[in-house]
Amino acid sequence: MSTIRVLGICGSLRKGSYNRMLLKAAGEELPEGMTLTTADIAGIPAYDTDVEGNPPESVKKLKAQIREADALLIVSPEYNYSIPGHLKNAIDWASRPPQESPFRDKPLAIMGASISALGTARMQYHLRQVAVFLDMHVLNKPEVMVAGAQDKFDADGKLTDAKTREIVHKAMVALGEWTKRLKV
Amino acid sequence: MSTIRVLGICGSLRKGSYNRMLLKAAGEELPEGMTLTTADIAGIPAYDTDVEGNPPESVKKLKAQIREADALLIVSPEYNYSIPGHLKNAIDWASRPPQESPFRDKPLAIMGASISALGTARMQYHLRQVAVFLDMHVLNKPEVMVAGAQDKFDADGKLTDAKTREIVHKAMVALGEWTKRLKV
Amino acid sequence: MSTIRVLGICGSLRKGSYNRMLLKAAGEELPEGMTLTTADIAGIPAYDTDVEGNPPESVKKLKAQIREADALLIVSPEYNYSIPGHLKNAIDWASRPPQESPFRDKPLAIMGASISALGTARMQYHLRQVAVFLDMHVLNKPEVMVAGAQDKFDADGKLTDAKTREIVHKAMVALGEWTKRLKV
Amino acid sequence: MSTIRVLGICGSLRKGSYNRMLLKAAGEELPEGMTLTTADIAGIPAYDTDVEGNPPESVKKLKAQIREADALLIVSPEYNYSIPGHLKNAIDWASRPPQESPFRDKPLAIMGASISALGTARMQYHLRQVAVFLDMHVLNKPEVMVAGAQDKFDADGKLTDAKTREIVHKAMVALGEWTKRLKV
Repeated sequence: MSTIRVLGICGSLRKGSYNRMLLKAAGEELPEGMTLTTADIAGIPAYDTDVEGNPPESVKKLKAQIREADALLIVSPEYNYSIPGHLKNAIDWASRPPQESPFRDKPLAIMGASISALGTARMQYHLRQVAVFLDMHVLNKPEVMVAGAQDKFDADGKLTDAKTREIVHKAMVALGEWTKRLKV
Repeated sequence: MSTIRVLGICGSLRKGSYNRMLLKAAGEELPEGMTLTTADIAGIPAYDTDVEGNPPESVKKLKAQIREADALLIVSPEYNYSIPGHLKNAIDWASRPPQESPFRDKPLAIMGASISALGTARMQYHLRQVAVFLDMHVLNKPEVMVAGAQDKFDADGKLTDAKTREIVHKAMVALGEWTKRLKV
Repeated sequence: MSTIRVLGICGSLRKGSYNRMLLKAAGEELPEGMTLTTADIAGIPAYDTDVEGNPPESVKKLKAQIREADALLIVSPEYNYSIPGHLKNAIDWASRPPQESPFRDKPLAIMGASISALGTARMQYHLRQVAVFLDMHVLNKPEVMVAGAQDKFDADGKLTDAKTREIVHKAMVALGEWTKRLKV
Repeated sequence: MSTIRVLGICGSLRKGSYNRMLLKAAGEELPEGMTLTTADIAGIPAYDTDVEGNPPESVKKLKAQIREADALLIVSPEYNYSIPGHLKNAIDWASRPPQESPFRDKPLAIMGASISALGTARMQYHLRQVAVFLDMHVLNKPEVMVAGAQDKFDADGKLTDAKTREIVHKAMVALGEWTKRLKV
């Protein structure tokens, strides 16, 4: 494998989202040999089985991006103690026919940032269960749960907290190694 | 309390959904003193914090319906081992300001039907965790997990399986009692 | 109801356990009209279906204590991202025949203290799922997840952190109200 | 890697346990190049941090067996919608110092049999979360959840249901491939 191409998905649509900033920081903390591009899940309509045979362009594009990636990185807030609905809806759409699910056998790293003390832990464990069905291989460690996010980014959206930067870096290194290890 | 007004929400948008049929059966199995109306979650756009101050009409209507109900009944499929994204998105929208969350302190019953053997169990436990944050009081028993749904409804969408009918009836009776018990 | 008798169970066997200290603090923070006694789960052997008809004295005593209580309070560490095995084993034993499960229909509050940032959250959500089967009614709020426990108790095991004391107090008040509300 | 040595752990102490029978069937369904030995978790006392520096012989033996294995197979009933307490207690003991956790980086397959319709699903998802902390790599598919176990084994404890045999076989083949793939 020459370069490991990671596709990053932000689970928040908010422009000033801490999770968007965290995803950006992940891109800054890549070790050599890895690249990060991001997918956009805005504008995906509610999944409806009656029309799944004819998915919207936004879903087709997302599926193509996932298929081309060597690994996924989902960086998301926690809504109501679980996965944001619109992020889950994007996953639901992307997992369905007519084309084969692009998630199968992909390595996945999960991160999240929140103002609260748990740092999106509950979202992350629900997403890990979703990954069992999708047959993704989720990185175990380090878990990146950024609590007190309001104190860790500056006004320009830059991750300024050194310890958080370090764990984000370690996670990207670990995702690279995990991806290489799983490559047969 | 004179009549217990239950608001039913179907987690599938599909016209021929087994869960829509199951919700209909719940309405047929109400004991005296309970009514069931249903909310429509189709057409709710993806939740976005940047626009939450100005929710769409569909969200305002849903919130009003929840607020007026004495109890909720969510009947939903399981997607990718969790809550359907668009159902979770409707919940996310409805839980947010500017108005107070209408979910607080409401009794909730959960049901689900699937072709697979687990009968939406994984969706139901995730939804129970969501209900902790929303401060809803979820009925413990009976749990209604309808497996092998393709054999339990007729061509007109009528629930024909006697055992399933019985448990649906028990669940509605139990929801009524639970709602009365919680009424202060 | 005159007095609400709460039975407290500590999920750690360690003498210097932060959770034991937290349980003690809960006893100090009771509002008028509530009492707290504690059960001892040390010395309960591994549950074995082959001998369940003849439970050890320690299990019989625990079941009697649970039966007499108006509400339960479980204060526990998190082991390996879930419920401590020996605490779960005590629950398993107590839930089994020959006598009826004493857990049925009891109100339950859950608390936990840990050195880590999550404050036993993962243990608590697993215990909430266990409570569905046991048919217990778990208090939704406030959730008491004490992180950084090493800084919140003094050398004598007294809870010195004012904010934690306040939330413990609120939880005991809420448990009392929840218990009264459920009493038919 | 010459032979893949799997260590099997049965989560029930009952002599006539369906899960013990299922573990035996897994041993019969091994593809070439794999062996299965079983560990005994009976007689492990409750974990207590105060004595963890001096673990009982039963724990030392279990840890040595796990360390020597190339992969683990846990076959367990579900108690009270989660992991049997005594099984979790064995895992808790084995994960603790003074020696390093033997679980780290091991592949794991989970199976379970029950009389009820869910086939231990709730136990399995809790165990998957435990495996995140232990840093084990859990096989995604096939999930082996044997419902209606009373009809699938004969009087001698032999797994007679052909479809269940087939999925057990597939799971052991998949565990072998997963173990090889993870071997660096």
